[in-house]
Amino acid sequence: MKVAKFGGSSVANAEQLRKVANIIQDDKERRVIVVSAPGKRSSEDIKVTDLLIDLGETYFKNEKYEDKLEVILGRFQNITDDLNLSNHVIEEIRNGIEDILASNLEDISKMDALKATGEDSLAKILALYLQSLDVNATYLNPKDAGIFLSDEPGSARILEESYQHLYKLNEREEIVIIPGFFGYTKGGKLVTFSRGGSDITGSIVAAGVKATLYENFTDVDSVYSVNPNIVENPNKITSLTYKEMRELSYAGFSVFHDEALIPAFKADIPVCIKNTNNPSGMGTIIVSQKEPQPNPVVGIASDTGFISIYVSKYLMNRELGFGRRLLTILEDEDISFEHTPSGIDDMSVIIRQSQLTKEKEERVITRIKEELNPDLVHVDRDLALIMVVGEGMNSTIGLADKATHAFARANVNLEMINQGSSEVSMMFGIKTDKVDEAVRSLYKIFFEGE
Amino acid sequence: MKVAKFGGSSVANAEQLRKVANIIQDDKERRVIVVSAPGKRSSEDIKVTDLLIDLGETYFKNEKYEDKLEVILGRFQNITDDLNLSNHVIEEIRNGIEDILASNLEDISKMDALKATGEDSLAKILALYLQSLDVNATYLNPKDAGIFLSDEPGSARILEESYQHLYKLNEREEIVIIPGFFGYTKGGKLVTFSRGGSDITGSIVAAGVKATLYENFTDVDSVYSVNPNIVENPNKITSLTYKEMRELSYAGFSVFHDEALIPAFKADIPVCIKNTNNPSGMGTIIVSQKEPQPNPVVGIASDTGFISIYVSKYLMNRELGFGRRLLTILEDEDISFEHTPSGIDDMSVIIRQSQLTKEKEERVITRIKEELNPDLVHVDRDLALIMVVGEGMNSTIGLADKATHAFARANVNLEMINQGSSEVSMMFGIKTDKVDEAVRSLYKIFFEGE
Repeated sequence: MKVAKFGGSSVANAEQLRKVANIIQDDKERRVIVVSAPGKRSSEDIKVTDLLIDLGETYFKNEKYEDKLEVILGRFQNITDDLNLSNHVIEEIRNGIEDILASNLEDISKMDALKATGEDSLAKILALYLQSLDVNATYLNPKDAGIFLSDEPGSARILEESYQHLYKLNEREEIVIIPGFFGYTKGGKLVTFSRGGSDITGSIVAAGVKATLYENFTDVDSVYSVNPNIVENPNKITSLTYKEMRELSYAGFSVFHDEALIPAFKADIPVCIKNTNNPSGMGTIIVSQKEPQPNPVVGIASDTGFISIYVSKYLMNRELGFGRRLLTILEDEDISFEHTPSGIDDMSVIIRQSQLTKEKEERVITRIKEELNPDLVHVDRDLALIMVVGEGMNSTIGLADKATHAFARANVNLEMINQGSSEVSMMFGIKTDKVDEAVRSLYKIFFEGE
Repeated sequence: MKVAKFGGSSVANAEQLRKVANIIQDDKERRVIVVSAPGKRSSEDIKVTDLLIDLGETYFKNEKYEDKLEVILGRFQNITDDLNLSNHVIEEIRNGIEDILASNLEDISKMDALKATGEDSLAKILALYLQSLDVNATYLNPKDAGIFLSDEPGSARILEESYQHLYKLNEREEIVIIPGFFGYTKGGKLVTFSRGGSDITGSIVAAGVKATLYENFTDVDSVYSVNPNIVENPNKITSLTYKEMRELSYAGFSVFHDEALIPAFKADIPVCIKNTNNPSGMGTIIVSQKEPQPNPVVGIASDTGFISIYVSKYLMNRELGFGRRLLTILEDEDISFEHTPSGIDDMSVIIRQSQLTKEKEERVITRIKEELNPDLVHVDRDLALIMVVGEGMNSTIGLADKATHAFARANVNLEMINQGSSEVSMMFGIKTDKVDEAVRSLYKIFFEGE
């Protein structure tokens, strides 16, 4: 049994839903379908989930919300009209939304229920459409599927018992259509995952039913070896390990949210990323292990917005606990660090800039000065990290040579190299303004054999 | 005023002391002289300090020590005979040692006093010898020089007020000869620095008198760019910054103990390393700042005996405090770490093998497993660290390229690269068995222009 998840752009309109229906019918193994809410139909369009959030916020402010409701219903009605489905479902959606708004739920839970309407309605519509094609398909509410979550509206987590409930889906004869993004507390309250949570539902369902494959349908043919905005028409990755995917996701690859992978990862389910608009394409398959490759480098990712706090103190390395105390100061301010390159008498902490407000930065620097008594402390801004990723890199002689050569050739100074802990990546820190040149130079060396 | 310190091999016998006397007379600025105890006269010889320790241990065990005392006195008598000095000083040394042994000091302080006899006697002999040459020179006891130390026998530290006392040496007309290695507590008890402490005395005295130069006379012409046991006839370093010296010392350069540099470093006194056997040679000068060089690499050092503890956990980087808790476990066992390279979901801690007994290692691994709940933890042994050192390296494009190329050419896999915090070094971790090849390959690239 395969679990197929269709993202927002795959269910944005009737045309896309026809493709989805074809894909489902193409493979008898595709028996559990997870759907997102309708996404953008063009780059100026607004996602249904954003429309729903706007509706909720308008309602909470006691402003006129009726027009906004009609816009949302219009999005669904366009689809049902186009697919020749009964208007009944639209009324059901309208009643559902009005019931939520009028309920006595707390605002935060009301918002969760409202947001979930996007996925829920689309799942119902897709089931109806498949039925109209004489496909044995049925809508399945997450509660009935057994998706139970922690009581954390907007960032709920799966409860372990859900997996056993989900396993029973194997007994079903028909194709089930499950809305993504939400589930229920044990008390029966609707709660959502964090944004992008349909990927989490898909991964959880795939793990629960012990699927042979979890297919994640999006609007790209595959994961690319490098950001196509930086390098034109780059290499497609056909096969990727979980670890490689995680390292690439960390540094800016956004095919899907890496946290969503955890349930599939833990259950060792292969994940395939495919294009709804080109379903016969190979896609990219994510597995737990793969054969060693002659060129172990699978991808190059980059991310900006890092800063470095540099602390130097003569004979630092004889001072037991120095590094630990530095990290404690950051932890006290709820700042998580990315890396800590060190010399003999100095240590730098690399942090995402977004973690550090002006006030936090001042407090941290003051405490470092007062408590660690360093010779010097300063902050470097506008750092970018570049990751060169691939299983087997750590045992291939000459890769660091190739990579550093790429930076030198692009005339880029290396602020930082961090290699040696991860078995699947090498990390380089450079100034942000040079990041595209550096990535292009690396790509040439690793993928164009220069 | 210059302070000149002469090491053990420079004062090992009468022939060496004649060279020392010439060096002192060669430059009127050399007005404060610090001496070690006589060192080895040949590779099979025993240093006087070791003879004194052996004497003390024999005495404490209530065994016959008289022969051992005669051997020590013989060493000094050879010198005085050869230099035609009166035998009176030998009797003084004998009486001094016997007084120490018979005193009611604690054993640890008795041993300190005994060890100090080596430097103290040599200083007296050198003063007598200079006087016999009609040089206006005098022996000066550290107490009279004002060298006051903390009450930590065998590892005493300087008390701040000593510097003011020492400054008064500027008022002296004559050359003063101060024995290195020891000083006195405020209560008047003799205490020694840690082993090699004559370098510390020299550096403290240079700082105290605000010397224009601190000359450290040894038996090598200069500091070399690389260990001469690995590369034959290597490049001599003429000028080195404190920072460079410190990074090189860390990784196996043992010209002198880097901690000894601190007082000179803080007082910004230039330090010159010279050869007693070739005093007209340039030597190596250590300064706080130097001009930028076309080849910023000044030296390559290597050290072995490191291990790495690798910890991996999926989504580690979202877990606030993970790194800090790992370091706390080590700190609880009194283990100081060297470096902490990290990936997204993993972190390694590089530790000197000597810090980790079998029992400590087991406790640390158990606690990591229990408290951090990692997916994986393992220990890698037999790591060597190689440092490429030079001011200005961090702003020179292409250096990492050159260095990694050297490793690739020598067919050496890089287990770790740590660059980016220190402004004066790049660090590489490799397997110990490849360290010499790697160093030779780096030397060729950075110093032979290959």
